[in-house]
Amino acid sequence: MDFTVRAAKPEDCKDVSRMIMELAVFEKMPDQVKVSHKELEQDGFSASPFFHCLVAEVPEELKSKEGHTKVGYGIYFYTYSTWKGRTVYLEDLYVMPEFRGKGIGKALISKVAAVGKEQQCVRLQLSVLDWNTPSLDFYVSKGAQDLTASEGWHLLRFDAEALDKLVKEAPTN
Amino acid sequence: MDFTVRAAKPEDCKDVSRMIMELAVFEKMPDQVKVSHKELEQDGFSASPFFHCLVAEVPEELKSKEGHTKVGYGIYFYTYSTWKGRTVYLEDLYVMPEFRGKGIGKALISKVAAVGKEQQCVRLQLSVLDWNTPSLDFYVSKGAQDLTASEGWHLLRFDAEALDKLVKEAPTN
Repeated sequence: MDFTVRAAKPEDCKDVSRMIMELAVFEKMPDQVKVSHKELEQDGFSASPFFHCLVAEVPEELKSKEGHTKVGYGIYFYTYSTWKGRTVYLEDLYVMPEFRGKGIGKALISKVAAVGKEQQCVRLQLSVLDWNTPSLDFYVSKGAQDLTASEGWHLLRFDAEALDKLVKEAPTN
Repeated sequence: MDFTVRAAKPEDCKDVSRMIMELAVFEKMPDQVKVSHKELEQDGFSASPFFHCLVAEVPEELKSKEGHTKVGYGIYFYTYSTWKGRTVYLEDLYVMPEFRGKGIGKALISKVAAVGKEQQCVRLQLSVLDWNTPSLDFYVSKGAQDLTASEGWHLLRFDAEALDKLVKEAPTN
């Protein structure tokens, strides 16, 4: 299929925002999305961006039923392992349902891998919901290991309220 | 107990490196540590650092049996949630055994929370091994939720070899 994968620009954020919501609906948590396209513009396109974004685009003649030409995205950032070093972390990978099975998801993750490699990253990590077997199977077929299953890593979170409680206990020195 | 928590400097990396190894021994994977103090200096203290580091220090008269005054550290970086926004991620939190139970771990995580809050982060995340109940209990007592247990998030990794395979498949456009 004819498509391109490129770095997102601020003007892509409306489309990315639309697809973030589509992904959240799939993940059964649409009411969890609080980030607007304005915040994406701010947080991803400043001098010290909190994330980087790729978009997959098809030519006008292949646009979606609703008229979209931006049909997939990948959001990633850099993290660090004190054991292995530089790591690229894939936060979101999404392709609109009517464009799946055409290599777009594969192209997006491969491009994130390539950009990470340029930055001397030695691994790529991501998180998947355990019931999302199509995604789990996709990543495992590409060579990923499930570290929660094999080593027992659990993800923990302090949400806004718990974070504020921690902050109140911070030393002032 | 008399101690201070402060941002690490490049010259702290030897001590941080020593404590990274101590933590890896506790986590039963000491042979996994490949990062040297030189790499920590490079990766944490450049113009676009891959991580930030805090150290906990005690006065000379309270030094450890082996003569160390840097007795704990926290390594963190910024990540992003496309649902909630800016996130601070605590990669490592460690206090030397003979200095535990004195509030140093609590001071380190609270300081990471405070720095994250200054950067407008809305959550703090971290990963813990499921058999490490002292740490799990510590974080839960401070308000953390175990998302792997409650929502089913699994951590996946492409290691160096799998990453290289992905890179080879990257689109060239």
